[in-house]
Amino acid sequence: MRVLGVDPGLTRCGIAVVDVAPNRTATLVGVTVVGTGAEQSLDRRLLAIDEAVNEWLDRHSPDHVAVERMFAQHNTPTVMGTAQASGVAIAAAARRGIPVALHTPSEIKAAVTGSGTAGKEQVTSMVTRILRLGEPPRPADAADALALAITHAWRGGLMGRGLETGNLTSPQRASSFPTAAGSPGARGSSATAAQRVWLAAEQRSRGAGGSQGWGGGSRT
Amino acid sequence: MRVLGVDPGLTRCGIAVVDVAPNRTATLVGVTVVGTGAEQSLDRRLLAIDEAVNEWLDRHSPDHVAVERMFAQHNTPTVMGTAQASGVAIAAAARRGIPVALHTPSEIKAAVTGSGTAGKEQVTSMVTRILRLGEPPRPADAADALALAITHAWRGGLMGRGLETGNLTSPQRASSFPTAAGSPGARGSSATAAQRVWLAAEQRSRGAGGSQGWGGGSRT
Repeated sequence: MRVLGVDPGLTRCGIAVVDVAPNRTATLVGVTVVGTGAEQSLDRRLLAIDEAVNEWLDRHSPDHVAVERMFAQHNTPTVMGTAQASGVAIAAAARRGIPVALHTPSEIKAAVTGSGTAGKEQVTSMVTRILRLGEPPRPADAADALALAITHAWRGGLMGRGLETGNLTSPQRASSFPTAAGSPGARGSSATAAQRVWLAAEQRSRGAGGSQGWGGGSRT
Repeated sequence: MRVLGVDPGLTRCGIAVVDVAPNRTATLVGVTVVGTGAEQSLDRRLLAIDEAVNEWLDRHSPDHVAVERMFAQHNTPTVMGTAQASGVAIAAAARRGIPVALHTPSEIKAAVTGSGTAGKEQVTSMVTRILRLGEPPRPADAADALALAITHAWRGGLMGRGLETGNLTSPQRASSFPTAAGSPGARGSSATAAQRVWLAAEQRSRGAGGSQGWGGGSRT
């Protein structure tokens, strides 16, 4: 299964593609960070993101698209710009009929590190291990988009039920995969070190984030 | 000059097209309100708006696109959805190379009624008069998108300098048209009653909103 993750933003918009095998091995396909300076007009900034997302969708034909869900907790222009960028990315996927799911930052942190309050370095470190990379992904902001794509594959995409569009509004989605940790192939003796790390993190995640809910955000 | 105005929203997204002649006569070309119910997924909702905006852009080929600028004053999902919808509309115009401008609600109210704090009924009443309609535009929400398109033509589009994309970030844009009220043709003896109403409102608007700035919002 191929997942394209988008960490939206006008200045830095992370776009990552990962392939996740049935045995949960995750492989980096590509990652980039696009964006524009604040001196550019809003329409040019959104156009740059639109073009990049469309190019990556065309080039990599993902099965699913995951977009980071953010909350308007701070009344700043940055929040609005980020929301506008996410809208552009979601619409680009929807035009192609690709299912879109949203994940909160805490869900992503919990999925890859086991803690919904993990720091940026910890997320980067785990992404590096999960993807079996020789060094942390570059640019640094790319790690968030990679973590998002991994999270999506992990939290449901692999279960064969997919994360269909209708699930975007389902607050109890996270708890609808109670058997994920027991899926076949995940604990075979051929598991790599990274897979074992991942599985351990997943187990911690299920304890920490399983009841969090897709529509939540109380941990953010 | 043809302006397409977008009053963004997931549930109700107003799209209006007006033609504005050099003598400032504004004529209704078309108006609609699209949107989806909250039971639909976010990607389907944004797709519906994306498709509608693209269809109207293709059908009417506007010279300018104006989008209502909103602020994250309330920390609600509605604000985020509205921002996402506006991002989709702005990107659609940008893909076609059509200049995009943003106007705040208070700018729009000031432009068509003379008061930045006018009520919805007052805006609808003035839009009806300015466009020389026999009755208020339907659906009711359409009046906001019409007022936005009229505002854009009025505040700069008619001056021949256009509202280029770079101006989106220019906070002093509103004050860069100091001669607008004295433009030729606006006060000819052939002015209709609606035009006189409009011109009077414009004069009040310049006093009330002229120093407000495009990037402002302190009046909102």
